[in-house]
Amino acid sequence: MSTTPETTTENTPPAPAPATNDVVEQMRIALDGPWRDLRERIRGELPWEAISGTPGESIEAQRERVTRQVLALADKGYGSIGFPTQYGGTLDYGASCVAFEMEAYGDLSLLIKNGVQFGLFGGAVSRLGTDKHLAAYVPDIMSGKLMGCFAMTEVGHGSNVAAVETTATYDAQTDEIVVHSPTVSATKTYIGNAAKDGRAAAVFAQLVVPSVGDVADGEEETPSKGVHVVVVPIRDEDGNPMPGVTIGDNGVKGGLPGVDNGTIAFDHVCVPRENLLDKFGGIDETGTYVSEIDNINRRFFTMLGTLVRGRVCVGGGAGAAAQKALAIAVRYGEQRRQFSAPGSPDELVVLDYLAHQRKLLPRLAKSFALRFTQNAMTARLQELEDAATSSEKETPGADHEDAQRELEAWVAGMKAQTTWHALDTIQACREACGGAGYMATNGLTQMRADIDVFATFEGDNTVLMQLVAKGLLTEYKDQWGDLDIAGTIAKVTAQTVEGLVENTLKRAGLQRLIDGATPRNDETALDSRGWQESMFSERASHLLETAAMRLRKAGKSDGFAVFNAAQDHILAAAKADIDLRIFEAFKEGLEAMPEGEARKLMAKVFDLYALASIEEDKGWFIEHGRITTSRSKAVTTRINELCAELRPHAVDLTKAFGIPESWLENDLIDLGQDRAGVTA
Amino acid sequence: MSTTPETTTENTPPAPAPATNDVVEQMRIALDGPWRDLRERIRGELPWEAISGTPGESIEAQRERVTRQVLALADKGYGSIGFPTQYGGTLDYGASCVAFEMEAYGDLSLLIKNGVQFGLFGGAVSRLGTDKHLAAYVPDIMSGKLMGCFAMTEVGHGSNVAAVETTATYDAQTDEIVVHSPTVSATKTYIGNAAKDGRAAAVFAQLVVPSVGDVADGEEETPSKGVHVVVVPIRDEDGNPMPGVTIGDNGVKGGLPGVDNGTIAFDHVCVPRENLLDKFGGIDETGTYVSEIDNINRRFFTMLGTLVRGRVCVGGGAGAAAQKALAIAVRYGEQRRQFSAPGSPDELVVLDYLAHQRKLLPRLAKSFALRFTQNAMTARLQELEDAATSSEKETPGADHEDAQRELEAWVAGMKAQTTWHALDTIQACREACGGAGYMATNGLTQMRADIDVFATFEGDNTVLMQLVAKGLLTEYKDQWGDLDIAGTIAKVTAQTVEGLVENTLKRAGLQRLIDGATPRNDETALDSRGWQESMFSERASHLLETAAMRLRKAGKSDGFAVFNAAQDHILAAAKADIDLRIFEAFKEGLEAMPEGEARKLMAKVFDLYALASIEEDKGWFIEHGRITTSRSKAVTTRINELCAELRPHAVDLTKAFGIPESWLENDLIDLGQDRAGVTA
Repeated sequence: MSTTPETTTENTPPAPAPATNDVVEQMRIALDGPWRDLRERIRGELPWEAISGTPGESIEAQRERVTRQVLALADKGYGSIGFPTQYGGTLDYGASCVAFEMEAYGDLSLLIKNGVQFGLFGGAVSRLGTDKHLAAYVPDIMSGKLMGCFAMTEVGHGSNVAAVETTATYDAQTDEIVVHSPTVSATKTYIGNAAKDGRAAAVFAQLVVPSVGDVADGEEETPSKGVHVVVVPIRDEDGNPMPGVTIGDNGVKGGLPGVDNGTIAFDHVCVPRENLLDKFGGIDETGTYVSEIDNINRRFFTMLGTLVRGRVCVGGGAGAAAQKALAIAVRYGEQRRQFSAPGSPDELVVLDYLAHQRKLLPRLAKSFALRFTQNAMTARLQELEDAATSSEKETPGADHEDAQRELEAWVAGMKAQTTWHALDTIQACREACGGAGYMATNGLTQMRADIDVFATFEGDNTVLMQLVAKGLLTEYKDQWGDLDIAGTIAKVTAQTVEGLVENTLKRAGLQRLIDGATPRNDETALDSRGWQESMFSERASHLLETAAMRLRKAGKSDGFAVFNAAQDHILAAAKADIDLRIFEAFKEGLEAMPEGEARKLMAKVFDLYALASIEEDKGWFIEHGRITTSRSKAVTTRINELCAELRPHAVDLTKAFGIPESWLENDLIDLGQDRAGVTA
Repeated sequence: MSTTPETTTENTPPAPAPATNDVVEQMRIALDGPWRDLRERIRGELPWEAISGTPGESIEAQRERVTRQVLALADKGYGSIGFPTQYGGTLDYGASCVAFEMEAYGDLSLLIKNGVQFGLFGGAVSRLGTDKHLAAYVPDIMSGKLMGCFAMTEVGHGSNVAAVETTATYDAQTDEIVVHSPTVSATKTYIGNAAKDGRAAAVFAQLVVPSVGDVADGEEETPSKGVHVVVVPIRDEDGNPMPGVTIGDNGVKGGLPGVDNGTIAFDHVCVPRENLLDKFGGIDETGTYVSEIDNINRRFFTMLGTLVRGRVCVGGGAGAAAQKALAIAVRYGEQRRQFSAPGSPDELVVLDYLAHQRKLLPRLAKSFALRFTQNAMTARLQELEDAATSSEKETPGADHEDAQRELEAWVAGMKAQTTWHALDTIQACREACGGAGYMATNGLTQMRADIDVFATFEGDNTVLMQLVAKGLLTEYKDQWGDLDIAGTIAKVTAQTVEGLVENTLKRAGLQRLIDGATPRNDETALDSRGWQESMFSERASHLLETAAMRLRKAGKSDGFAVFNAAQDHILAAAKADIDLRIFEAFKEGLEAMPEGEARKLMAKVFDLYALASIEEDKGWFIEHGRITTSRSKAVTTRINELCAELRPHAVDLTKAFGIPESWLENDLIDLGQDRAGVTA
């Protein structure tokens, strides 16, 4: 273990005492979560060169470099993680998410190119295909021999995947599927691996299977089977586009310069019937469409659901980038001096200023919270995977389907929250490093530019939060439907009482009266986990219940108008739900730690996360009588105290993420320490 | 006027009625402000090619292109705006800020290169130099024949300019000034024009003038005269560095690829005594330091104060970029369709969703507010300039100095608020345009990358807000000092009463009681300009007074600790002050408009700005008893209504910025409108 980078102390003033290292190690164990061994392996075996980028080089050069690195990583076995072992895959499904997180400390163009090849293209083939597809494609995908695209997004349809216009029409005469782009807006776009490397594409298209023979009345008559995925060769061995395939280059983007995003249009391209990935719906030898899922919507969502890993990865990758940005900015803040305190000849290090602590430490605490949640979510993904694999059933049962839908909502919300957090955090870190932060050599600006699109791809964040809300509202409706009369009355009564109390508070200021009478209680409550938890959970349930009530008023004719007028409310309910899940994950992570200094320190980080979240939304909490105005002010005071208490541990806290020093030092800003007037 | 682009209606569905155009024109006149003629001239005469960029090209190619464009603009006379007319300058000082704003609709690398050459380098020479310098340099600066640097920032000192380490030591023997970088951290860095084009640099250095002959006791004895600026040739005619000058290239940055930022270090470089820019302090023929300003600090701040235009420009440029981003995103939102409403075959345009309106319209309203403020601030800059120029005095009087300090604080705060607004807005616009927003051809991502550093250069935003606070606190202290005993008692009593009322409110919920009794009053008040204004002004004065009280408790020994513990409070006071100024500027702008439809529409934009600002800080307003919880909820409801009311005017509102269509159409996103299922 002496070679593991995290025990290296060089370049890290002040030198931490051994005891501190134990604390760091304990925290790191907690943050590493269930796939700690894999994280340790990657830390030990991946040299920086294998994953580092070259900001500023031409797009052509970066694309070449990234392709080289993808193949080199595949050679090391990184392409095989998470594929079924019977086809040469290694480790488990969740491990592929953890590997993705670790790779996100490196160049993000490389990360996304890896994600496209092994996660999206490889994932589509292995999750939507059947044995024949896995046997035919997976080994070559894992080795990088067959580079492929995930051709879902179209010019006209990003978020609304169900409405893609590309068609895949079965022709019984030739026993082939004809893939076609009927309109300009049906052109596939932003497709990674398309512009340069892709040989094949997993194409999302409306499957059309004309009925065979006579169809009885009442039977399914429509030839439209909804969105399915077909593997289509797009380039020949020499790299030329296949007949009928038109490939374009998206060219310069806001970031990810090493990813060859492009457009693909199809002009009646014929592929064998077997190229349809038919796990959830296929065409048999008689030319008849067969699926165990009759409902076209359920089939669509089941298919998309199997691809949930992509969003787990995107969120995890963004979270990792934010961690790295904080590691860079905190170290800079620990060394950079500017302005002296009155009476002192030396300038202060900037992290000693409250404003600087306020900029970095709450974001650091949130990064801890998100990492715990990411671990829990990945573990849950693996749990459901294990359950599905151990089951002999071809199609998942209703319980499993519910669990899967719930996971999808959680993942969707976390993807949105983590990518937004990353954008906000990397920007704050850039500004906290001043002009030095703007220099490409210091790693922050390319990271920021690359992460930008994480808020949009794999689902637009706002649309994803809408999806969370939809899940919550459906579940809520289901619960109400299931309640017996007595239960309904009890619930209605409880809500009415709550409404009454809230109105009474509003009118009579009862809460403020209580508050005036029990000021001590306010103060002692701030660090109480139970109180913090009640804030998160009451906000989530209140927002959901009131959103549901608003929507219940909608009639047939004004349905959209009612929904739209409540959209901000609905999105707030979704965010509150995700925030609660994050809180719970942090709590579980903390409680799993052994008693000791590390746990005490972690508890303070948790307090900072919880209180900063409450402060951010203090308007809501006061509006709804959840905190008094004096308690709200006390929250702010306590956050400032926590910043001061955590400030000496700031560098150690960033070390707890376990980013190898050798992956960081290239990005550590040269401070030109040789200066006049500094004696410390 | 038929050739002015803003009357062109092509590409803008739905076609606006003539009446609407009048409204747009009226709003544009209001937003154009005092330099409307110049704005119109630039709109008419500058072709897009003159100011457009080439994202994705190599840094070398972009630098070449930008240099070419700078010289072409200089040929058209754009370099001469704002320089003294006796040396060939044209128009007035404020006009140079307005021209900068207009150029900010184009490539921002070009903008900054222009700013470095004509604003910073040219500004330093013309504002800190005397006739001999202006005669010698200004004509060549305006033509671009003499390209120059503004060498202020050092590796070790960005914000703390007073502590730069570069020295400029007068040598009486040779009658020369020796410019030297004594440490690594004294190296000048991030200096525009340094890496490629600069022939000379205005170097900020500690001036050292050893005393001549005997010095009487009590006279100024120190040879250190504080920071002064010396013109130093850095390259010869062939472009090679001058002896003793070491030039480096900062290389790849987060943005502004066309600006050749670099480092400069001096090894005992000798220049004639005359190269010292000596308006505020110089060395006479006897080798004696002479200045009309004795106090070294006052001298430093007077010198820096003359350079305030740089910050006016940076804020204005960022504001213009935000306007352009909104113009792009609003048009996209007006055309892009995604998801259909229940019962409708067609997908909705995304701007019809409340969440999308919420993303764009409050930011649009704030852009209006900032534009009015920018106009008022630029006019004030010109006013003080006129006053200074018409005065025969060499050094400004005390009144003028107070006015100047006040302007500087305003400018500092606006620079910070506008650049942060721009970053936030461009990012929201990028996300609102989805994947299309991430394509470089659509203009948003390069803009975002370029604007990033605006938050740091010309003063780190947080440090600038600190400067605003310092000004407020000083002014507040001065006021208190001037009060007679009776006045002091009255003021203390008033504050005590306010404190008592606030505490009473806290305990007894009186405000909520009042609120319960007068619900109608709450609702009618929301659109009341007086009520809105009272919110802005009471917040500003309360935060300032309470911050001052906290600081008054500080003793000698714990001064920094008390300040630091209150830093978030102090910064909030500064922001509240700037927000109030923005409110006042919007109010004045609105009131100057003729009665009619345009004014009515503008009033709604103002309401949205004001209410969204209040909502953003609703926690504070409720905490401090300024709004009730029910009023706070009503604010949110009203914002949603205003979004719906303004939504049909969204494109028109962006047209009111007066960005020529020909400057926009290159960035307008190709929507691939040819799609299935859209009948509208």
